[in-house]
Amino acid sequence: MHIHKRVSLNLDVRGLGQSATLAINDKSKKLQQEGRTVYRLGLGQSPFPVPTPVVDALKHHAHEKDYLPAQGHPQLCDAVAEFHRRKDGVDARGENVLIGPGSKELMFLLQLVYYGELIVPTPCWVSYVPQATILGRKVKLIHTRWEDKWHMTADLLERHCYSEEDDYRPRILVLNYPGNPDGCTYTSDELKSIAEVARKYEVVLLSDEIYGQLHHQGAHISVARYYPEGTIISSGLSKWCGAGGWRLGTFTFPKDFDWLLGKMSAVASETYTSVSAPIQLAAIRAFQGGVKIERYLWHARRILAALGGQCAQMLNDVGIRVHMPEGAFYLFLDFSPLSEKLAKRGITDSSSLCSRLLDDTGVAILPGQDFGRPASELTARLAYVDFDGSKALTASEIVPWEETLPVNFTKLWCYNVIKATELLIEWATRDSDQ
Amino acid sequence: MHIHKRVSLNLDVRGLGQSATLAINDKSKKLQQEGRTVYRLGLGQSPFPVPTPVVDALKHHAHEKDYLPAQGHPQLCDAVAEFHRRKDGVDARGENVLIGPGSKELMFLLQLVYYGELIVPTPCWVSYVPQATILGRKVKLIHTRWEDKWHMTADLLERHCYSEEDDYRPRILVLNYPGNPDGCTYTSDELKSIAEVARKYEVVLLSDEIYGQLHHQGAHISVARYYPEGTIISSGLSKWCGAGGWRLGTFTFPKDFDWLLGKMSAVASETYTSVSAPIQLAAIRAFQGGVKIERYLWHARRILAALGGQCAQMLNDVGIRVHMPEGAFYLFLDFSPLSEKLAKRGITDSSSLCSRLLDDTGVAILPGQDFGRPASELTARLAYVDFDGSKALTASEIVPWEETLPVNFTKLWCYNVIKATELLIEWATRDSDQ
Repeated sequence: MHIHKRVSLNLDVRGLGQSATLAINDKSKKLQQEGRTVYRLGLGQSPFPVPTPVVDALKHHAHEKDYLPAQGHPQLCDAVAEFHRRKDGVDARGENVLIGPGSKELMFLLQLVYYGELIVPTPCWVSYVPQATILGRKVKLIHTRWEDKWHMTADLLERHCYSEEDDYRPRILVLNYPGNPDGCTYTSDELKSIAEVARKYEVVLLSDEIYGQLHHQGAHISVARYYPEGTIISSGLSKWCGAGGWRLGTFTFPKDFDWLLGKMSAVASETYTSVSAPIQLAAIRAFQGGVKIERYLWHARRILAALGGQCAQMLNDVGIRVHMPEGAFYLFLDFSPLSEKLAKRGITDSSSLCSRLLDDTGVAILPGQDFGRPASELTARLAYVDFDGSKALTASEIVPWEETLPVNFTKLWCYNVIKATELLIEWATRDSDQ
Repeated sequence: MHIHKRVSLNLDVRGLGQSATLAINDKSKKLQQEGRTVYRLGLGQSPFPVPTPVVDALKHHAHEKDYLPAQGHPQLCDAVAEFHRRKDGVDARGENVLIGPGSKELMFLLQLVYYGELIVPTPCWVSYVPQATILGRKVKLIHTRWEDKWHMTADLLERHCYSEEDDYRPRILVLNYPGNPDGCTYTSDELKSIAEVARKYEVVLLSDEIYGQLHHQGAHISVARYYPEGTIISSGLSKWCGAGGWRLGTFTFPKDFDWLLGKMSAVASETYTSVSAPIQLAAIRAFQGGVKIERYLWHARRILAALGGQCAQMLNDVGIRVHMPEGAFYLFLDFSPLSEKLAKRGITDSSSLCSRLLDDTGVAILPGQDFGRPASELTARLAYVDFDGSKALTASEIVPWEETLPVNFTKLWCYNVIKATELLIEWATRDSDQ
């Protein structure tokens, strides 16, 4: 065989690499194998274990082997709908729920099946654009601003829809809150205003609420409350349930979106068939919730709030701009106040910023460019997850509920994150390379 | 919102329904819920349980929650490579293996990533054509003949490649043996001849050997022995390991196919991310094999050989043509000798044949049309799987290895399959509708 013939690839996938978050994970592992200390603040994996009742449920169902319906196990669909009724006060039913091997795959199916404009505010999750590229499509990026906590506003949406002078254009707007990569969320008033514009222009909302249960005050609000007829809620086990590697995501559709759910389910039946049966059966237990899982979530939130707040404070103190986090486990750092200093060291874009930081200090964070921001903007995402969540949960459990965590808690139980933040600060504020 | 705007679907998925095999499963379940007795010979699910050591391994790894590399857990990739070295005598390495959530998903990724002609001999597995449709592609179907046991021949391949007068066309030919929907396999001479033509025209072979371990004599041969530089072996847990609902498939590539494996893996990282971690860790145990799993396979084969042989004999005796099965758990029935009789009852195509059969007798089988055959051809797939595989295995275990199963074994332990075959025969040979 000759190479000229062999390498026969769809042009839309040429040049496609590993997903940015997985790639940083692989690079970090390699550096570690070379004996380097690496602070893994790149990949956004929950530091917490899967709650014990959910692990026990997987053991209990380990022998289950039947192919399940492409839409999902009916009991799981019911449990997910009940979860959103209970947590988010929306009137969802099991028949409106679609289960997939991760919400990333469901997002891909949506892009494949839907014919219309996909609007994504940036900074955004890393996979929307590559997914569109793979399918030979485009997404419409709308850059948000630091001043708006990197979030979409009703005004931006109004201007976008109005300026296109095309009322009939089918559109989906992606919202993600508490947000990856920014850790910020919306107020109910902000959500109401966005809902109003969406209703006016009949824009479908894909509301990615996978971090909803990791709102640091447990006060997440779904936009589906204000726009039930046009909101798809995306969730899953990966973040609040600590089960990223299990691969289970959920889409909960408005009542008369069978046309979309049905087609996504049909494509599922021709591709991954259905999500792994033992995993689905265990997920029923997760979505049912209960005291043990609520306790787990309460402690996870208390730890994340303390740690995220402390890191944000440290960074702001030296002029690296960052909003105080409200949920999830991310900070979106803006180094622009240090741009002159950094430029003197030859650092003028987010990619070189992050790769130099990793080489010099072992601290892995992801460049703003991977989140749809302009390459020259000095932004980056820090995931404060490099600690042993099991140990931290145990330590939190012995601190009374009514007390805040002691000041040395994060240094004791989340050492790598604090240490990495210190290293990052020292590195970013240097006057010259050492 | 108005319907005209809402229903905004990619034209390539309009009209797409559930996968044919899943649809028959759903329809059968509904009839059962209405109180009808249904003989489920439609869906091709293994009747046997997942072997105990593999279920135990899943329990053991139930707490594992990390995202795994998109290519697959390195230990699992090694175990799969070792499996093919041991079973098939091919020189595979872990780095050549890609793990997916079912080989169906891997096939979809292949169609998405590869740019070239996909040649599929019919009757073929139900999903190749719908997958191509979803992606806006075409597949090249080559109809095989009853006389060739419904299999591809070197001559057919030669004629296809030669007639196109395009030596440089990149091509993948799908082979599937023991075959779905036909239960037949190739001799080593046939494989050698096909390998020779493939080498001449530089055709890549996708060799779907997911039923390899269910060759009834345990004598499966991979075409990769004769064409290692151009054969991708497809396998997985669904059939020989009874774990269809677990969703784990494998592709094992030739040594210098990184260009293809790498891109499929990159697309995986942007879609399903990686296969469920606990499932992958349990699968290591499955591919490692050993005495317990070999015993399980030996009994499964003995049961399938007895049952498949008996059904084929019964059908042939009344003029429904079918080849004696050599592996898997399918028979591909040719009703054409009864075509005049059937035509008098208004049955002139495979779809009405199967739907009338289901309505009249409760026997569910799939029309030849779903396997790429012409609609008017009176063919259908029968999956002899509607029995309790656990009980049948236990019953087989008390029959000494050197003996054949007693004549009444299938009637005792696989009653529904025998009964359904009798009902089908009575129905097909009627002189008129009752």
